[in-house]
Amino acid sequence: MNRTDPRPRVVIVGAGFGGLTLARRLRKAPVELLLIDRHNYHTFQPLLYQVATAGLEPEEIAHAVRGIFQRQHNFHFLLGTVTGVDLAARRVRLADGTAIGYDYLVLAAGASTNYFGTEGAETHAFPLKSLPDAVALRCHIIRQFEAADRDPALIDAGGLTFVVVGGGPTGVETAGALVELFELVFSKDYPHLPVEKARVVLVEATDHLLGGFHPDSQAHARRTLERRGVEVRTGDPVVRVTAEAVHLRSGDVIPTRTLIWAAGVRASPLADRLGLEQTGGGRLVVEPDLSVPGHPEVFVLGDLAGSRDEDGNLHPQLAPVALQGARHVARQIRRRLAGVPGEPFRYRDKGIMATIGRNAAVAELGFGLRTRGFLAWVMWLFLHLVMLIGFRNRLNVLVNWAWNYLTYDRSARLILDLPVSREAVARHDAAPGPDLLTGKTVSETDLSARRV
Amino acid sequence: MNRTDPRPRVVIVGAGFGGLTLARRLRKAPVELLLIDRHNYHTFQPLLYQVATAGLEPEEIAHAVRGIFQRQHNFHFLLGTVTGVDLAARRVRLADGTAIGYDYLVLAAGASTNYFGTEGAETHAFPLKSLPDAVALRCHIIRQFEAADRDPALIDAGGLTFVVVGGGPTGVETAGALVELFELVFSKDYPHLPVEKARVVLVEATDHLLGGFHPDSQAHARRTLERRGVEVRTGDPVVRVTAEAVHLRSGDVIPTRTLIWAAGVRASPLADRLGLEQTGGGRLVVEPDLSVPGHPEVFVLGDLAGSRDEDGNLHPQLAPVALQGARHVARQIRRRLAGVPGEPFRYRDKGIMATIGRNAAVAELGFGLRTRGFLAWVMWLFLHLVMLIGFRNRLNVLVNWAWNYLTYDRSARLILDLPVSREAVARHDAAPGPDLLTGKTVSETDLSARRV
Repeated sequence: MNRTDPRPRVVIVGAGFGGLTLARRLRKAPVELLLIDRHNYHTFQPLLYQVATAGLEPEEIAHAVRGIFQRQHNFHFLLGTVTGVDLAARRVRLADGTAIGYDYLVLAAGASTNYFGTEGAETHAFPLKSLPDAVALRCHIIRQFEAADRDPALIDAGGLTFVVVGGGPTGVETAGALVELFELVFSKDYPHLPVEKARVVLVEATDHLLGGFHPDSQAHARRTLERRGVEVRTGDPVVRVTAEAVHLRSGDVIPTRTLIWAAGVRASPLADRLGLEQTGGGRLVVEPDLSVPGHPEVFVLGDLAGSRDEDGNLHPQLAPVALQGARHVARQIRRRLAGVPGEPFRYRDKGIMATIGRNAAVAELGFGLRTRGFLAWVMWLFLHLVMLIGFRNRLNVLVNWAWNYLTYDRSARLILDLPVSREAVARHDAAPGPDLLTGKTVSETDLSARRV
Repeated sequence: MNRTDPRPRVVIVGAGFGGLTLARRLRKAPVELLLIDRHNYHTFQPLLYQVATAGLEPEEIAHAVRGIFQRQHNFHFLLGTVTGVDLAARRVRLADGTAIGYDYLVLAAGASTNYFGTEGAETHAFPLKSLPDAVALRCHIIRQFEAADRDPALIDAGGLTFVVVGGGPTGVETAGALVELFELVFSKDYPHLPVEKARVVLVEATDHLLGGFHPDSQAHARRTLERRGVEVRTGDPVVRVTAEAVHLRSGDVIPTRTLIWAAGVRASPLADRLGLEQTGGGRLVVEPDLSVPGHPEVFVLGDLAGSRDEDGNLHPQLAPVALQGARHVARQIRRRLAGVPGEPFRYRDKGIMATIGRNAAVAELGFGLRTRGFLAWVMWLFLHLVMLIGFRNRLNVLVNWAWNYLTYDRSARLILDLPVSREAVARHDAAPGPDLLTGKTVSETDLSARRV
């Protein structure tokens, strides 16, 4: 983009909670905003597991970025993958070689899956960080049932065993949603299949689920999951993953073709390419005001930021931290423009919640209130509906949830066989070649030639 | 599937309008039904163009087959691709080598795109026959605007020129929907782009649009499209397609990166693998009762059937023909079971409609009524809503259409970058290899290595 706009340019990398909130907060600021993301939509990550378990359709948790900012005149969007930043020249580099100058840069690229170097995990495990991840997992899960329906022998080979690694909120939510999907929906979809033989195993390396929650909540989550048929295995980390099995440290081997990786995140790979100091998990070390040491014009937000609380502990990588950080950075940029010194960022913890499934959740609110069961679940539903961006999404999600709740049915259980498209390439940071202009489906020979 | 069920087995190939209707009609018949499709969902093909033009989301025009038949006890579903039939041994062959015996076989595999051997078309044109086709096209269209927004020079190179080939209902509907998408939505999404420079060209080989409709309807459709900004070119067939341009017989060359092929269909490739007599367009020659000559136990339905009217003309390849054919075949199978001789199939033409866009359509009803404009459009909307399978789909589509109509907005304009999955392989009739069990996304190098 050439500089025609005389106003200082604020480049925001990432259209997550942080990036969107910041752009919205600066709508009246005398700046030119440029938001860059590799997708043209915002993904509501807290509900990715619902897409993966056929509870919601992809479009219901995603919203086109340009649609969100249609009426914001200082806003520009650029579809691209940022591969680096030239801090001295104040320019970001894109995968296709383009360089884009900035006056202020805000890095809000979020986090990616952390396999902790587990052998075979990156190749065989299903991540759950993006919409395509969720769709691919949904298709794979349904395919396992279709295959078993044709050849029940697959069941004993682990064809209907689904292992979820990671006892955090995502793992708990996913495991809970899977047993529901099997019991309430697949049992009807596959009347000739012993669906009750389908196993959901939740594996957690530490001794308890929902680390960070109160012991009562942890125990409640475990009881609820086990009552619903989830096999919970704590204190036994995954050490090796193959296409047919998961190996645990105890030596136990779980035959499975589906390992869902909810064990942890690390900062976006972008953080590793900047030559800046990083914390554990690859997050960028930041000043108390969330700027980069030595670069007051560069801020870091959300999962990417190694910001700390008063006790020096890293902030959790949660949406509220990103939302509050975005409001803080918006304020700091306005202050810089006015020549006023910066302020330190303080995260106000309003509480945490996790849903375990139908009518079940745990919630711990900042002001000491702790609740669980139906009430917590309703709170969780309400909070997430309110957070979802865009009226229509909220409406559709509400309709879908109400439908699922009342009918025990699921709408989104389609195996959408997916053509290879320019998008898939862009996603992998390759500069699209003219041969891919057609976005046509890969041919059979091409596919069978490839060995992942 | 091994034969445990003593009842005669009716194998239905294809989950389109014909296959679904037939299976539903035989729900009380003393038979074992086995429906085979390469997708686990039914696609409402008449609205594919709405998905391609971001008016509807994929799930709104698709419905999981198992969901439709959850309560039908004589129904079985098999996800697979039929590659041949052993008529003597009464067995169908699947892509993975499985053979499935039948007592009655109904071929309802539908039609695929017909490129009429046009040079470069199969490589560079976008078909619009399946849900993945529609999603790939939608992503491609949006990508053209994102690319032009970054580099306006692309506009003069045809980056925002969209050519639709084929002046039938699909071509007319697609062209009309595209100009609406650009004028009503993209003009707001891309405020810094001269969206008015985007061209939609509808190319038709014959001298008139909507062949088969009354001349008044044809003229009305053309007038309406042209008034809305579509460039209509009749009597000038496409002779060559490249990645950058479309060449017409007149010698004119239209620079474009997007050619949408709505020019014609031919019977599913399955028809060519049976060693049976075929009509023009690859359809299977059938007896008056829709059975295969010499094989009274094999019926052919819908687009695949070369059935003819009293004057010996082939029936049109339209949904109503498939629906009526399915009801006919259901009746014939029941008669066979009862030892009663068969009846000839008679198609009752109830009329044809095509929508041109917002508030505009043409409708010609069997009983001589001809209408156009808003009334025809409302009739079209109503008919399609009623035809859509599944209450929820109807509801969502209604909500979406109402929203689009009132707000001039579109919800579905996400570029969902699509991972390569086992589905993509199955779609291409390859036996899934174990390496594809994970359904993981193809890696960058794999993709850039492929030259389509």
